[in-house]
Amino acid sequence: MQYAFADRVKSLKPSAIREILKFTSQPGYIPFSAGNPAPEAFPAADIARLSADLFQKRPIDALQYSITEGYAPLREHLTAYMKEKHHVGRDFDNILITSGANQVMELTAKVLCNEGDMVICENPSFIGSLNAFRSYGLRLRGVEMEADGMDMESLEQALREEKRARFIYTIPNFQNPTGVTMSLEKRRRLYELAKRYGVLILEDNPYGDTRFAGEDLPCVKSLDEDGLVVYCGSFSKVMAPGMRVGYAIAPGEVFSKLVVCKQVVDVHTNIWAQIIAHRFMTECDYDGHLKKNQVLYGQKARFTMELMDRHLGPWVSYQPIEGGLFLWCRLPGGVDMQAFCKEAVNRKVATVPGSAFLMDEGQPCQCFRINYSTPTDAQIQQGMEILGGLVRETCAR
Amino acid sequence: MQYAFADRVKSLKPSAIREILKFTSQPGYIPFSAGNPAPEAFPAADIARLSADLFQKRPIDALQYSITEGYAPLREHLTAYMKEKHHVGRDFDNILITSGANQVMELTAKVLCNEGDMVICENPSFIGSLNAFRSYGLRLRGVEMEADGMDMESLEQALREEKRARFIYTIPNFQNPTGVTMSLEKRRRLYELAKRYGVLILEDNPYGDTRFAGEDLPCVKSLDEDGLVVYCGSFSKVMAPGMRVGYAIAPGEVFSKLVVCKQVVDVHTNIWAQIIAHRFMTECDYDGHLKKNQVLYGQKARFTMELMDRHLGPWVSYQPIEGGLFLWCRLPGGVDMQAFCKEAVNRKVATVPGSAFLMDEGQPCQCFRINYSTPTDAQIQQGMEILGGLVRETCAR
Repeated sequence: MQYAFADRVKSLKPSAIREILKFTSQPGYIPFSAGNPAPEAFPAADIARLSADLFQKRPIDALQYSITEGYAPLREHLTAYMKEKHHVGRDFDNILITSGANQVMELTAKVLCNEGDMVICENPSFIGSLNAFRSYGLRLRGVEMEADGMDMESLEQALREEKRARFIYTIPNFQNPTGVTMSLEKRRRLYELAKRYGVLILEDNPYGDTRFAGEDLPCVKSLDEDGLVVYCGSFSKVMAPGMRVGYAIAPGEVFSKLVVCKQVVDVHTNIWAQIIAHRFMTECDYDGHLKKNQVLYGQKARFTMELMDRHLGPWVSYQPIEGGLFLWCRLPGGVDMQAFCKEAVNRKVATVPGSAFLMDEGQPCQCFRINYSTPTDAQIQQGMEILGGLVRETCAR
Repeated sequence: MQYAFADRVKSLKPSAIREILKFTSQPGYIPFSAGNPAPEAFPAADIARLSADLFQKRPIDALQYSITEGYAPLREHLTAYMKEKHHVGRDFDNILITSGANQVMELTAKVLCNEGDMVICENPSFIGSLNAFRSYGLRLRGVEMEADGMDMESLEQALREEKRARFIYTIPNFQNPTGVTMSLEKRRRLYELAKRYGVLILEDNPYGDTRFAGEDLPCVKSLDEDGLVVYCGSFSKVMAPGMRVGYAIAPGEVFSKLVVCKQVVDVHTNIWAQIIAHRFMTECDYDGHLKKNQVLYGQKARFTMELMDRHLGPWVSYQPIEGGLFLWCRLPGGVDMQAFCKEAVNRKVATVPGSAFLMDEGQPCQCFRINYSTPTDAQIQQGMEILGGLVRETCAR
């Protein structure tokens, strides 16, 4: 049988990260390539206890069909929590519980864009989202990242030039892969530009609650007086990713379309996971849990950065991070980044070549991404020594 | 803000069933409109025990990110089980675990069809699947249902006429909503026609294991020598729908595209649910559980059909069922079906107007759908009395 596939998926490739992840999940590899939260950060004992209690007292609630919008108590609690803690969500907004945050990107692309429409993205950006957009045949236009977020001149130019731009995709906090946090000034400017050009914003915030240094900045959604922002939250980095629970806070009209499209994908999100998320937020010390994890991530990130400085400096540069799971590392000009990452894998250290995150993977790129939350401290130590050796060999040539 | 939505979703309406379900989940309504499996059929105690054991011994496995294809032990076990029990799956096939079965329909439409392509469907058919196809801007062509499945003459005519037909969608066992099971002869004919016209088959089999009378017929997929059939299975009717676990067994090339597209929707299916499904199948008496549920469904279905005969006969006709969750009930000509269903809701009995399942909801329809697995026996008794009263009033006029 000769299979003919839809145009939209013909050119779609498996995510380079997940392919590398599969390869390097073999024992013996140091998994700097992963994006897993640290397992010691999971509230496993609380989840076990809540789950046992749920199955003892209300098993049918955890097993029967539920409604597409999501588990009502979780929706209500999250709505109040996000309003109080982050000033996110107004009367015109509504909340949808999704099967992980990536579903928000996929559904937003599906409801807002016709094939050939444009999404304006930070360049580089998270490949899972980029591929979600690509899977609807959308064109991606990249706006270069600076140390404080997107280059606003380029963004405005893109908005001026692109008549079919439908939304701007941003990860304002500890962006994946660059680790960059957008300044307050740029958040305001982003919102103004979106308003002026009548283009929506998709704000993806999986890492906001991992901040271990510095001060929180207001979400772009907190500025949203006009119903321009779809906000995407996730429990993957603050509770457990295997549960696959995320959410969208979106203007009512957009919300309604997201619901209809979610209905035909998976009817609703696993209800056990939704109930556990709700009970964990309301019956356990949720803010204390976040705080504890921030301390853990801070220690681990600082440990990694110290080893980076010791073994890879002065050849490899990076912007120090205050949260998130990733370091974006730049090799000196003249070094072949792809060859470097390949040789690192030969030495059993897996990183992600930076080009995987570009709008156009064929463009030159001197960067690679390091994740510090998956490997153990011993692996980080060993991995940095190996990378350091490789860097010295490569750069001292 | 004036929102502009994608063409594909502009005309997409929320599923009539789920809207009715929302309305009638208020206490006091008799929920013949639902599609929930009977809660007493859930293996709640086993799931509670397996879940507690899992969180005690391997909590991280149940909480960390996993791979898109699905939990490897579940994939391996299901592959062997489906091969042995149903002769489903060959060397060229591969298995993908999905977040419920509807995801298989949504992904299959996404990977196989461009906008404007055609899906040939049984008419009437399951609205969740129809809306999944509609959500990609696909045209649906209905083939009328007979007592032993699709009208094969009309199917061939459709295949002859429609150059952009991409696949044929069928629920061969206890079809939703008609309850019809396709004869073996028609299964063979369907396969031959698909082969001759080079069109794939999407075989959706959520109800096969609910058979409480008669003999199992071979799956269409068991005839698949040529890689023409995407088979879709589900745990929703045989374990618990709130877990949202389904699967596709598809030819390798199609499987690969399904994986890439699933990756951008939800990365992977809730891993706790996948592990529990695997352990329930392998550590508990799975076939004994199916058998027990078949007895339960048989009793409940026969009870419902007896009451139908007593209270709604001779005015309302239906084809007796041997499995599945639904009865397809036909009102006499001249009776306004929509008005009938509306008045039933006024009397606190919710059914689903049959037109919801048509390719073209505007076509005339004399049928409505009854679900017998959600209401209690007392509700069935009371509901049939109320419907009976309404039928007598309406038909004796």
